[in-house]
Amino acid sequence: MISMKTYNVAVLGATGAVGTEMLKILAERNFPVGQLKALASARSVGKQLPYGNSFVTVEEATESSFEGMDIVLGAASADLAKKLAPAIVRAGAVFVDKSSAFRMEKDVPLIVPEVNPEDAKWNKGIIANPNCSTIITVMALYAIAKVTPITSMVASTYQAVSGAGVEGLRELEGQAAAFAKGEPMQANVFPYQIAFNLIPQIGSDSGNGYTTEEMKMQNEGRKILHMPEMKVSCTCVRVPVLRSHSISVTFRTAEKISVQRARELIAAAPGVRLVDDLAQKQYPMPLDTSDQDIVYVGRIREDLTDDHGLTLWCCGDQIRKGAASNAVQIAELLI
Amino acid sequence: MISMKTYNVAVLGATGAVGTEMLKILAERNFPVGQLKALASARSVGKQLPYGNSFVTVEEATESSFEGMDIVLGAASADLAKKLAPAIVRAGAVFVDKSSAFRMEKDVPLIVPEVNPEDAKWNKGIIANPNCSTIITVMALYAIAKVTPITSMVASTYQAVSGAGVEGLRELEGQAAAFAKGEPMQANVFPYQIAFNLIPQIGSDSGNGYTTEEMKMQNEGRKILHMPEMKVSCTCVRVPVLRSHSISVTFRTAEKISVQRARELIAAAPGVRLVDDLAQKQYPMPLDTSDQDIVYVGRIREDLTDDHGLTLWCCGDQIRKGAASNAVQIAELLI
Repeated sequence: MISMKTYNVAVLGATGAVGTEMLKILAERNFPVGQLKALASARSVGKQLPYGNSFVTVEEATESSFEGMDIVLGAASADLAKKLAPAIVRAGAVFVDKSSAFRMEKDVPLIVPEVNPEDAKWNKGIIANPNCSTIITVMALYAIAKVTPITSMVASTYQAVSGAGVEGLRELEGQAAAFAKGEPMQANVFPYQIAFNLIPQIGSDSGNGYTTEEMKMQNEGRKILHMPEMKVSCTCVRVPVLRSHSISVTFRTAEKISVQRARELIAAAPGVRLVDDLAQKQYPMPLDTSDQDIVYVGRIREDLTDDHGLTLWCCGDQIRKGAASNAVQIAELLI
Repeated sequence: MISMKTYNVAVLGATGAVGTEMLKILAERNFPVGQLKALASARSVGKQLPYGNSFVTVEEATESSFEGMDIVLGAASADLAKKLAPAIVRAGAVFVDKSSAFRMEKDVPLIVPEVNPEDAKWNKGIIANPNCSTIITVMALYAIAKVTPITSMVASTYQAVSGAGVEGLRELEGQAAAFAKGEPMQANVFPYQIAFNLIPQIGSDSGNGYTTEEMKMQNEGRKILHMPEMKVSCTCVRVPVLRSHSISVTFRTAEKISVQRARELIAAAPGVRLVDDLAQKQYPMPLDTSDQDIVYVGRIREDLTDDHGLTLWCCGDQIRKGAASNAVQIAELLI
């Protein structure tokens, strides 16, 4: 008889879009789960959430929820993450947190497992899961960044409504249904109607005209890629797409990389798929990348404004690789 | 009694999204129309199109349609424009053509009236109306370009379905309705479903990995702004928005322009409105710019990758300023 080591896992914020996906992915990837806890606020207690072919019953998240846990996957707000982190660490669990609470802390590794798995080793009880569009962009670029530093990047994002959780998804679906019936469209989650519209603000003003979301691309990108000098100008835009983020990126490298070389590097990179044949109308699209973990990259071409520059287009599922799958992959680094 | 000079005007391709809008705008702007002809293909003959409080009856477009006309507003395909241009010029009319047929011809001015109205003077019977996203981008930047050359630009577009005409609008509306009813979504006009999706291809491969639409931003931008050295890397993306195009632009200027100066210049520019207050959630959005001629500009901030760079976001109605209104404004330069 083979005895397999298992790990006690809690999902904090288990009822949200990312939390429910984390439960799904733990089962999908056969994560060696011993005890499983689904934690959420008091009003969800007793709710049954799917886990593989079975269900797990929601318990209330409190400071005493973490005794005996090995890994806590955080899918809650930054405020709740900050409040509960000391109890998680005290209980001896590793907290893999998807909120922005700890990402830029010096003592906290910020990890995309394909890119900087080695950073998991120096964790002191907390590992942060990066911002969703940053994960997808870094996934598209890491194979090139391993060859030569990326010196600068101009990125424009096309971000799905799932970035605002289940409520964001419901709002776009509800507005589309209202439009079809000729009824007025209600905006509650987003500040303006999102169906048939674009909202060029995600996050709040960070003080320099960029939003907090836009600055994550530079600040988190630098930390994940170990490139503290990389300069990034980012524009984040909410678009009426359900759950895949897309990013148009123009970037410069220290050493010149040809389009052909970039294609080869990206095609060989784990977790990434090269979809790049304009003549055959083959390129990444949100519809094709939803409900899976692979980040698609295409439209690779020379940057006409800089001879060390390249331009590309990438898409990835915001809920999965942008959040839940990346967190479970981080947990896999710990076992 | 005051006798006012009038001009005989033909609209070629009068039944399309741009053609019907041209008729509407001629009336709206009180263009001094003498005789008015609405020209289209044989199958539309006899159709009544709204013109002010009245109607105009569609006639077939043939080589003999242009006798006695002073101005022909072209809203037809490049092929039809090429076929009929000699007859239009022979008849002594000026052909203001929105197709791509003549835009890059040396003898043909390419005009955005707020930017380079003086170019109308050297026309030899044909004036080209630029590409829609190029018009909107150039409108956002021209006040700055009049102060100092724009040396380079990285642009990512978010282009409405109206760029594919009435059929594009119907396709998105039809897909949204099908989605609401749980029915399958049909794609006929666009190569893939556009509702809840993004298609990162507009135009065909121009040979260097960029699409023909993407290269227009550089080639037409240079001609309109009289900046033959300006380098542009553009990514054109179709988004599920009805009729306003949006563009995220990062650009570098020869002389450094501060954010404050850029705001002042743009705020004072005719045809443009500065909507730029992130803290108050004020920025350009497609919903706000539809059905009007003004291009909205906002999110102006420093380019973090270059100290002579700025970044901004602009939106404008694709059918109006992107095509029909710009054409009628060009016609106004001729009278």
